[in-house]
Amino acid sequence: MERTLWKHIRSVKNQSPLIHNITNYVVMNNTANALLAVGASPVMAHAKAEIKDMIGIASAVVINIGTLDEYWSEAMLMAAETAHRLNKPWVLDPVGAGATPYRNEILKKLLQYRPTVIRGNASEILALSGSQSSTTKGVDGTDSSNDAIQAARELVEQYCSVVCVSGETDVILDNKKRTVSIKSGHPLMTKVTGLGCSASALIAAFVAIVEDKTEATTAAMALLGIAGELSERQSSGPGSLQMNILDKLYNIEETEFDEHLKVSME
Amino acid sequence: MERTLWKHIRSVKNQSPLIHNITNYVVMNNTANALLAVGASPVMAHAKAEIKDMIGIASAVVINIGTLDEYWSEAMLMAAETAHRLNKPWVLDPVGAGATPYRNEILKKLLQYRPTVIRGNASEILALSGSQSSTTKGVDGTDSSNDAIQAARELVEQYCSVVCVSGETDVILDNKKRTVSIKSGHPLMTKVTGLGCSASALIAAFVAIVEDKTEATTAAMALLGIAGELSERQSSGPGSLQMNILDKLYNIEETEFDEHLKVSME
Amino acid sequence: MERTLWKHIRSVKNQSPLIHNITNYVVMNNTANALLAVGASPVMAHAKAEIKDMIGIASAVVINIGTLDEYWSEAMLMAAETAHRLNKPWVLDPVGAGATPYRNEILKKLLQYRPTVIRGNASEILALSGSQSSTTKGVDGTDSSNDAIQAARELVEQYCSVVCVSGETDVILDNKKRTVSIKSGHPLMTKVTGLGCSASALIAAFVAIVEDKTEATTAAMALLGIAGELSERQSSGPGSLQMNILDKLYNIEETEFDEHLKVSME
Repeated sequence: MERTLWKHIRSVKNQSPLIHNITNYVVMNNTANALLAVGASPVMAHAKAEIKDMIGIASAVVINIGTLDEYWSEAMLMAAETAHRLNKPWVLDPVGAGATPYRNEILKKLLQYRPTVIRGNASEILALSGSQSSTTKGVDGTDSSNDAIQAARELVEQYCSVVCVSGETDVILDNKKRTVSIKSGHPLMTKVTGLGCSASALIAAFVAIVEDKTEATTAAMALLGIAGELSERQSSGPGSLQMNILDKLYNIEETEFDEHLKVSME
Repeated sequence: MERTLWKHIRSVKNQSPLIHNITNYVVMNNTANALLAVGASPVMAHAKAEIKDMIGIASAVVINIGTLDEYWSEAMLMAAETAHRLNKPWVLDPVGAGATPYRNEILKKLLQYRPTVIRGNASEILALSGSQSSTTKGVDGTDSSNDAIQAARELVEQYCSVVCVSGETDVILDNKKRTVSIKSGHPLMTKVTGLGCSASALIAAFVAIVEDKTEATTAAMALLGIAGELSERQSSGPGSLQMNILDKLYNIEETEFDEHLKVSME
Repeated sequence: MERTLWKHIRSVKNQSPLIHNITNYVVMNNTANALLAVGASPVMAHAKAEIKDMIGIASAVVINIGTLDEYWSEAMLMAAETAHRLNKPWVLDPVGAGATPYRNEILKKLLQYRPTVIRGNASEILALSGSQSSTTKGVDGTDSSNDAIQAARELVEQYCSVVCVSGETDVILDNKKRTVSIKSGHPLMTKVTGLGCSASALIAAFVAIVEDKTEATTAAMALLGIAGELSERQSSGPGSLQMNILDKLYNIEETEFDEHLKVSME
């Protein structure tokens, strides 16, 4: 798989897929910039009056519940239903899953439309699977665990989604029983808000184009992880890291990518 | 006209007009910062309960439909109507025009209140004029064309607006049959989300103060273009460019501005 | 008090309190990053369907009315009522107070729930106290005055809040008749949108943990002021200052903090 990852990164740049984001207010600017940096075309739109039309012209959709409310939840459900019906790949980012009953309720409804990919941190994936009670501490949690991998496996089985548990090691599972581990990234990335949201958006850019959705997810996560790792060396803290990652996503070269790729598959 | 552009830049800094923005979530932070950098005072407000009062104290208004929905559209229409009635200059940024029927419908209603200035990329201006079918790819499009200039001319005639088609060359048309071309800027600017939105906001800052709205629009577009061009030299990618443009808008000097000004008028 | 301020900064880093923000769109990214940089855990949530639950798990709440509307106002009132009832500390940031009757009306209702801390610039504090008519110019005002101190005193008496009037000198008053003055910061900070909003969020992080709310407010304001002052030296303008402040909030050291601390108390 390592061989093809860079090819996918080139494809996104060349084909510039239109990615429709229904995402949270906190990360919209950064998410749009991350998509532009890898060569994709972002559009942010949430009006119920245009969601179906927008999904019609998009190549993939991201639904991120970070700052959901009643209106946005309805829009998200409409988007998930439309994407599912039109066979457009869509990515679910269950920000803050487990934090409130309301989030859990909306997520349960969204899952019915079988996301192509689900990406969350360990506590979010645990809450999403409902396999055990879980409490969320903020939305920038990072701790990972075997329990979360088990929860991810349950989600894969139940919804046929590719599931990515992001953390110090990102773990990606699919219904072909593949398990991909990525050891890129840097702890300082957890001090920048919304890099997980950027990850989900980048995954959407890759699933829009790459047939094998597990490979697509791996390419996106490896790209962001390596960009973060390399950028951290130029950064004095989380502020400059947030900026430098955008630069690196834009100008990363094949040799850098290959040299820092730490992917393994079982 | 070149002679007076720097004078207008000084006037904005000295008079610090209050600019009321009804704009999209993606760019709000960056737009507010761009306005502050040139010396204007930004306010972002969209509540129907206060829009009329806010316009009452503002010197100019920007309406940017990027992330519109039913509530925001009503607020935008209320704002456009109020600005029109009170003779306050207002700028329309038709983000994503042509992408969905809903956008086109709201834009049609907004146009009734005769924007002082309309700024969009070629595909947006084409969609807005309705002169031909047009499809939008994302909201960061850049291609320009003679068709778009023709579409802009139709908008000028129909609404008496100054119309700016931004792209590699920015073209500004008005109802005195003037055509201004600006060749500043850098292609990397298309990889930063929302610089078009910043342009529209800066135009508002200048039309708030400068009597000749075509000159005002030219000053804003030239300033942002030159700031982008100069900043790109210090930037490693779109992340640092987004930041450096704000610095340059703040500290640009007359000699730099004059030296890089590439404006022509027919 | 100087002695204990750094201890409080360490406590926030070590205890990482969950801070619930109901804030404006313009600053959400930057506010979340500022909270992460000092070691707190931010969550942004405004849905009426989950506000009570979210406050239940949060250690403190910020209510910032910057881009309020009818829905958000109801959510804010629900949040203030809940925080007050559960004895959770909450911070009010009355952005744009005095700009419109609507803002004043919502603020009046919010005050009934007795904010733990109120932080605003001079014109906002004047408008909030209602002690005299005041007009707001944008939301990034800075001028300070004896009138504002008097207005702050009235707010302290009426609501038992700690009140911080931020400006060139930040002044903090409480109902033990203490007056703290902080002379840190740099004028360029007024050219970065939303640093006042960051200040309010940081205050929330400190009141979540520190028993003495005046000390907590002082620690937050001194930390941001010193971070701004030190960062400005590395910055070419407001764009880089916005970024560098996040870095400095993250990596500031005790010796730097102590060396630049300019706090006095009567």
